[in-house]
Amino acid sequence: MNLWADREKLLAQVRAQMNQKRYDHTLGVADAARTLAERYGADPDKAELAGILHDYCKCWPVEKMREILVRHDMPRELIDGDKELWHAFVGAVVIQTELGVTDPEILQAVRYHTTGREGMSLLEKVVCVADYIEPNRSFPGVDEIRRLAEKNLDEALAFALGGTITHLVERKKQVYPLTLLAYNDLVRKGGNGW
Amino acid sequence: MNLWADREKLLAQVRAQMNQKRYDHTLGVADAARTLAERYGADPDKAELAGILHDYCKCWPVEKMREILVRHDMPRELIDGDKELWHAFVGAVVIQTELGVTDPEILQAVRYHTTGREGMSLLEKVVCVADYIEPNRSFPGVDEIRRLAEKNLDEALAFALGGTITHLVERKKQVYPLTLLAYNDLVRKGGNGW
Repeated sequence: MNLWADREKLLAQVRAQMNQKRYDHTLGVADAARTLAERYGADPDKAELAGILHDYCKCWPVEKMREILVRHDMPRELIDGDKELWHAFVGAVVIQTELGVTDPEILQAVRYHTTGREGMSLLEKVVCVADYIEPNRSFPGVDEIRRLAEKNLDEALAFALGGTITHLVERKKQVYPLTLLAYNDLVRKGGNGW
Repeated sequence: MNLWADREKLLAQVRAQMNQKRYDHTLGVADAARTLAERYGADPDKAELAGILHDYCKCWPVEKMREILVRHDMPRELIDGDKELWHAFVGAVVIQTELGVTDPEILQAVRYHTTGREGMSLLEKVVCVADYIEPNRSFPGVDEIRRLAEKNLDEALAFALGGTITHLVERKKQVYPLTLLAYNDLVRKGGNGW
């Protein structure tokens, strides 16, 4: 389908993959991503589309996701790691094969929206931060991320990823290495400017 | 020199590299490492010796350490990273070249005593935990590490490294990737047993 021409059809397709709460979140991220894109000079249409698509597989059965990860030869540390991360990598595969999304920027934004990675593109940062701050989200620190996102996207993302890292460590959970590399990269580039 | 036969000479040599406070810490680590080794089945003599040597270069000038790192072709992320980590990697080189330490277990215990790494040996864990808990150390959480070290070395080390990670993130500082890998490895192996 032509994703923008058939916007209603796309939204119906997305809606069919998830529950109402996840769909509300999806629309919130799409909207927040467009706003951030306009603020920081990313492509607003791509940002909104990546937002609409970012959690396409979030509610899929774990076994279906695992099968796709194995079939696409994803890293062992991902398959053996936290299942909460799978939907992003699976989503990037599925929106390409089932919906015909070919734009590499959008595919990468979906792929890395949960873990982050070293050297994130502007669109990847926009979607990742939008996922943290859309209006339905509520967790300790979210208002500080929202405040930072008004003035400095990198600082907002470093703070958000740092919060994820400490949240996991405080619960004796593993931290996906890409997330630390994303955090380190932003801190290194931010220098003492924050 | 024969390190154990010339114990007094070795201690004088170590003392000459550092200030009194660092030397007191060094003796504390040596003693704590011997105790932990006896508790968990590592070699007590090796543990004590690694403790005596672990901070051999801690008070050396930064430029002298940098020169050694560069000459030995150490990873870029180490040279570009936090200088607080350098003394461990430099120390492992210097105690080999200047003191004639050849035991690979002791060299590794000195090399990784600050960062940790994935797949740490028992002796490496002993020295790393001893460095956190020796009696002169005082920081938030140290008593919990001391308590855990009485019963489970891996849990004590995971908690200690986790504390280091959150301490750094809360100060917007980078975390050396090996430290996260060490933490993840311990958490993975600990499972839900802690």
